[in-house]
Amino acid sequence: MRIGIVNVNTSESMTQTILAAARSVAAQGTTVLGLTPAIGPASVENHVEAILSATGVLSAVREYTADPTRTPVDAWILAGYGDQGKEALMELVDVPVVDITEAAAVAAMAIGDRYAVVTTLDRTVPMIRERLAAAGVAARCASVRGTGLGVLELEEDATSTDRAILARADEALAQGAEVICLGCAGMAGRAGELSSRLGAPVVDGVAAAVGQAESLVRQGLGTSRVGTYAPRSPKPLAGFGEFEVE
Amino acid sequence: MRIGIVNVNTSESMTQTILAAARSVAAQGTTVLGLTPAIGPASVENHVEAILSATGVLSAVREYTADPTRTPVDAWILAGYGDQGKEALMELVDVPVVDITEAAAVAAMAIGDRYAVVTTLDRTVPMIRERLAAAGVAARCASVRGTGLGVLELEEDATSTDRAILARADEALAQGAEVICLGCAGMAGRAGELSSRLGAPVVDGVAAAVGQAESLVRQGLGTSRVGTYAPRSPKPLAGFGEFEVE
Amino acid sequence: MRIGIVNVNTSESMTQTILAAARSVAAQGTTVLGLTPAIGPASVENHVEAILSATGVLSAVREYTADPTRTPVDAWILAGYGDQGKEALMELVDVPVVDITEAAAVAAMAIGDRYAVVTTLDRTVPMIRERLAAAGVAARCASVRGTGLGVLELEEDATSTDRAILARADEALAQGAEVICLGCAGMAGRAGELSSRLGAPVVDGVAAAVGQAESLVRQGLGTSRVGTYAPRSPKPLAGFGEFEVE
Amino acid sequence: MRIGIVNVNTSESMTQTILAAARSVAAQGTTVLGLTPAIGPASVENHVEAILSATGVLSAVREYTADPTRTPVDAWILAGYGDQGKEALMELVDVPVVDITEAAAVAAMAIGDRYAVVTTLDRTVPMIRERLAAAGVAARCASVRGTGLGVLELEEDATSTDRAILARADEALAQGAEVICLGCAGMAGRAGELSSRLGAPVVDGVAAAVGQAESLVRQGLGTSRVGTYAPRSPKPLAGFGEFEVE
Amino acid sequence: MRIGIVNVNTSESMTQTILAAARSVAAQGTTVLGLTPAIGPASVENHVEAILSATGVLSAVREYTADPTRTPVDAWILAGYGDQGKEALMELVDVPVVDITEAAAVAAMAIGDRYAVVTTLDRTVPMIRERLAAAGVAARCASVRGTGLGVLELEEDATSTDRAILARADEALAQGAEVICLGCAGMAGRAGELSSRLGAPVVDGVAAAVGQAESLVRQGLGTSRVGTYAPRSPKPLAGFGEFEVE
Amino acid sequence: MRIGIVNVNTSESMTQTILAAARSVAAQGTTVLGLTPAIGPASVENHVEAILSATGVLSAVREYTADPTRTPVDAWILAGYGDQGKEALMELVDVPVVDITEAAAVAAMAIGDRYAVVTTLDRTVPMIRERLAAAGVAARCASVRGTGLGVLELEEDATSTDRAILARADEALAQGAEVICLGCAGMAGRAGELSSRLGAPVVDGVAAAVGQAESLVRQGLGTSRVGTYAPRSPKPLAGFGEFEVE
Repeated sequence: MRIGIVNVNTSESMTQTILAAARSVAAQGTTVLGLTPAIGPASVENHVEAILSATGVLSAVREYTADPTRTPVDAWILAGYGDQGKEALMELVDVPVVDITEAAAVAAMAIGDRYAVVTTLDRTVPMIRERLAAAGVAARCASVRGTGLGVLELEEDATSTDRAILARADEALAQGAEVICLGCAGMAGRAGELSSRLGAPVVDGVAAAVGQAESLVRQGLGTSRVGTYAPRSPKPLAGFGEFEVE
Repeated sequence: MRIGIVNVNTSESMTQTILAAARSVAAQGTTVLGLTPAIGPASVENHVEAILSATGVLSAVREYTADPTRTPVDAWILAGYGDQGKEALMELVDVPVVDITEAAAVAAMAIGDRYAVVTTLDRTVPMIRERLAAAGVAARCASVRGTGLGVLELEEDATSTDRAILARADEALAQGAEVICLGCAGMAGRAGELSSRLGAPVVDGVAAAVGQAESLVRQGLGTSRVGTYAPRSPKPLAGFGEFEVE
Repeated sequence: MRIGIVNVNTSESMTQTILAAARSVAAQGTTVLGLTPAIGPASVENHVEAILSATGVLSAVREYTADPTRTPVDAWILAGYGDQGKEALMELVDVPVVDITEAAAVAAMAIGDRYAVVTTLDRTVPMIRERLAAAGVAARCASVRGTGLGVLELEEDATSTDRAILARADEALAQGAEVICLGCAGMAGRAGELSSRLGAPVVDGVAAAVGQAESLVRQGLGTSRVGTYAPRSPKPLAGFGEFEVE
Repeated sequence: MRIGIVNVNTSESMTQTILAAARSVAAQGTTVLGLTPAIGPASVENHVEAILSATGVLSAVREYTADPTRTPVDAWILAGYGDQGKEALMELVDVPVVDITEAAAVAAMAIGDRYAVVTTLDRTVPMIRERLAAAGVAARCASVRGTGLGVLELEEDATSTDRAILARADEALAQGAEVICLGCAGMAGRAGELSSRLGAPVVDGVAAAVGQAESLVRQGLGTSRVGTYAPRSPKPLAGFGEFEVE
Repeated sequence: MRIGIVNVNTSESMTQTILAAARSVAAQGTTVLGLTPAIGPASVENHVEAILSATGVLSAVREYTADPTRTPVDAWILAGYGDQGKEALMELVDVPVVDITEAAAVAAMAIGDRYAVVTTLDRTVPMIRERLAAAGVAARCASVRGTGLGVLELEEDATSTDRAILARADEALAQGAEVICLGCAGMAGRAGELSSRLGAPVVDGVAAAVGQAESLVRQGLGTSRVGTYAPRSPKPLAGFGEFEVE
Repeated sequence: MRIGIVNVNTSESMTQTILAAARSVAAQGTTVLGLTPAIGPASVENHVEAILSATGVLSAVREYTADPTRTPVDAWILAGYGDQGKEALMELVDVPVVDITEAAAVAAMAIGDRYAVVTTLDRTVPMIRERLAAAGVAARCASVRGTGLGVLELEEDATSTDRAILARADEALAQGAEVICLGCAGMAGRAGELSSRLGAPVVDGVAAAVGQAESLVRQGLGTSRVGTYAPRSPKPLAGFGEFEVE
């Protein structure tokens, strides 16, 4: 099985971090490849960047799938917390699409009563809260908390990053959360270490998404085409001709 | 006061329809101008088009605001049903932004118990329902119903379009809705006629948005910058350099 | 256009405060007039007073509309936070009715993610919370907070009133609200000053209601008569003969 | 124990119907007395009448409690479906207040999964739905359905009234309700007969309220005075001097 | 009338405490009897114990109802906070079943705006919260708070138990609750004393359940058999032959 | 990796059906074993049976884990729709527990907007609806529909079973569902065939659960022990001594 993971930002080093986290949990026989958009923001921390990121993600995936020299994948993972065009990606590709925000929530709900998300800047909290609600997995979300760290700051000083995440996680546990989700793809790979120090499970959305993608593929399930994700009709798309259907 | 209305698609004729509807309800002293994106879909009927539309809308508004020869506006109206980047637009511009989906719902709730939205293709129903929920105005939404007509078909045959809208509106009333919202900017200008035939109020989102925009401007209210809509930080935006902040 | 504002209490000085706030945001060509009920409580701070206030409001408006010497208005604004009979007023008059509690919430939702209401006595908090829920605009309400000040105390010492409001507003912002609604008609006219000091938008429900009323009138929208606000049937109303329909 | 039941309308015959239903289920040692307001609507079927009814109810109870020749009661029952000032009555009197709308819902939830309410005119459906939501007992309400019969028509022809109620009840059961609440005090006394014919439990709110009132009294529970139902402060109440506190 | 109360654990002394509380509020003519399961946990504080308790409860009641020497009861009360098989008991017996968790919530909602539950160990908080939600009475629940005391510790030192309950109750009131429910059958009989010291109503679920049971019996209401509580079909129940129906 | 699947009823043939479905989607290297409870109902179709089933499931798993001759598993799957003690099982075992009701919902939400569940007898509909709500995955559930077939009837005549399922599935799609979940472990293995005939994705909870279990194991995630699933304290469990902890 081949799974493609598309980073929502243009940071190639973050794509590598994500890829390492994904590979560490992939089943035997699963190949994971990473895709970094050529266009879009260096990180996604606000609504303008989310829209541009979504466009960049769609372009990168479209280019991949249109390239006959590249091997098709069996599922795509959208590696970004918040809303970077998952529904559009579901329409664009023929295979299932898994979102790390949802996958993390789903894994968290399987192993505890309520979960909390610890993320980057406070300003992204409403974006994540809204995404969880839209995805239908907010009912058991106790809170979404910001660390005040920007996405690109996460990699600068691992010690202080971990300290900031643990501080918020402790607050969340004290108020009733039982599981913590790492609310940024840039935090991928840290779940094990943080969980040991916290004394409670910590979920990495990238790792959670790999399992969900593998599972959908093995079940032979793909996006439903009978409703909102039906095939698109032909239509002029000025400036975005590569997305037109025939 | 100057209000800019940005169409979410590239149909110039639809921009004119929208503009006419807006001007018919604008207060004395309000100037309304219309903006048609140079890039994006001819109409918005699925999630891919919604993302591309949002990018097109941001580009069009960004170009307008960056052009010293164009007079600044006091508020922007986003003329599209569903989600075409309203939150991003709120970040991008210094003035208030009004969304026709929300404005219609708000007007409808002021004049009846429950409202229904009658829109275009069935596949857009979940998009609108989700938008109303995200905007916090879904609690009194009785239903969202599709006519099966595409956005660009609306203008083809006014008689059959009206018939299709009225059929769905009648169903909605029979099941408890008291007010109907026209769920597409392309239906602008038809509310009065349809209301007469239906025997119940029909709300045109464009008209509703004009009043809300005028009201926000007169109150001196602008987007809050203390939370999720705080000023963006400088950051590389590959391929979208025009959106970078300094 | 003529808009009538009915105060929910018998304080003539508060009616003048409300009227000044309303006029400061009214569009050119809009005439605003104020109405103070002859009967009812001096201020509304509990459920008994809310019922008596509603009766007083209905009487005052009924007397106005029945008086051939008074010019009909195009819309009524009900200037009270909480529940003082808005739905009954919608049945009683032929023109649209706007409630300041709802209008403030709607304006706040247009310019931020979540809003908070800062009001008078703590005991009114459940009344306002319930009103927002009934109106279908509670989903994005972060909190309703009391200052501990009675309605009639608000005017006594502007400095300490502002200080109390700002203290609660700061708490609300710290917990995620992005916009503050002034939760009492008696706070009308203070939004601009408080917003400057707070650094976040402050919404005055009276001002918000004027814009909403103007907008409904310009759109030609009136209360739907097909459901719960259908015309009343003739019926004996012992002791309230003036409200009987023929 | 003495329980007072106040009818929400001025129909003395309906008060007698209510009283008979109440007495038929009262425990040994419980005395039930009925109160018919001197002022207010002949029946309550819209929002204007609801406000006037609430004022009439408060007046009637106030007069009763202020009259030294009348024996105090241990609890009051408010016999009306919808909102006729229950919260205000809770403030006005020293003893517990039970609402038949809530009491019926509570009894229904004890004996089945979901319940439905069958009421009078369709226009009252939103009023009842809203009341159930405000009371916090709507989560298991499957539907509220109107028979099209006015309150005062109920007593005209028992056969056709029963037929209309059963028709709606059958529909409700077919869509998943398991218990039916009779949504009007004027339907009191019919539950047993209707239940036999329907083959499912039918709850009479008056009967349910008697049990709830007796229970609160036996438990020594009264309205909490620490929050929204705290004692009212002295204040001028123009035209309603009888409600002033000292 | 005869009411049976089944304790959810095997503590005979707790059954006596419960019985005393029940008898103190029972109406004249009501006989209350207590049942202690022969099998099951000594107290219920986690999910495993809840399942075993439910089985023990069903066995005890089944044995009682199958024993021709024991007088049938008119209603059963399930005396445990959380979920110990109430729905199953509704299927098992022919008479109404009342749950103390729900009965307490219902009584609390009748006498205040929001209520809080003060219970035993923190780990039971989600169990109670979930039960209130499933029962449809959570909308006005402000919070569920643990004292950190185990069920069997409650009886050890009444002074420190009361102190722990009052500390949590005070916190709950400070955050907006107006009524406190005692969240464990083992707290039965303490409501009056605790209410006096707290200055706000305190509800004992056992007492509340007695009134609700009496009321259902007087109304002639029993569990609806048209839906989820329809008679069970014959079926092998390996190891539980006593529960088989013919 | 070893995964244990415990059937909720005592039908060995159903265990085999479940096992076959599980194995068909298991990853390379995953061993799946099935467990049939020795005690409990032949099928689970009501609340009494659900409680007895939960006890049987706990016993079977407890016996397995206590048996030193049996190889420990890395995760357990609870193969039953509705509520058969998942939370208790989470406490009982050291490894993660996956519920097919939740796993199916989660898979369905990944591939469509709204999903519906098609199940056996109508009386189980509220049980499944409640389970989805408790699990926090009900927000996007369009409906739960019964076929009228008992669990053990499913295997009798595959043709008519499929016809009944498809009829309900078609109704669900017509009302807006985009994905169908097979609401009974006894339907395992039919998803592919039914999906082809329906033209929309059909999810088999058993298959979905296998992937979720594998994913949790690969992520190294186990049930959180900081809250409601903390280790149980020692306590007498009369009649259930095998469940006592030391």
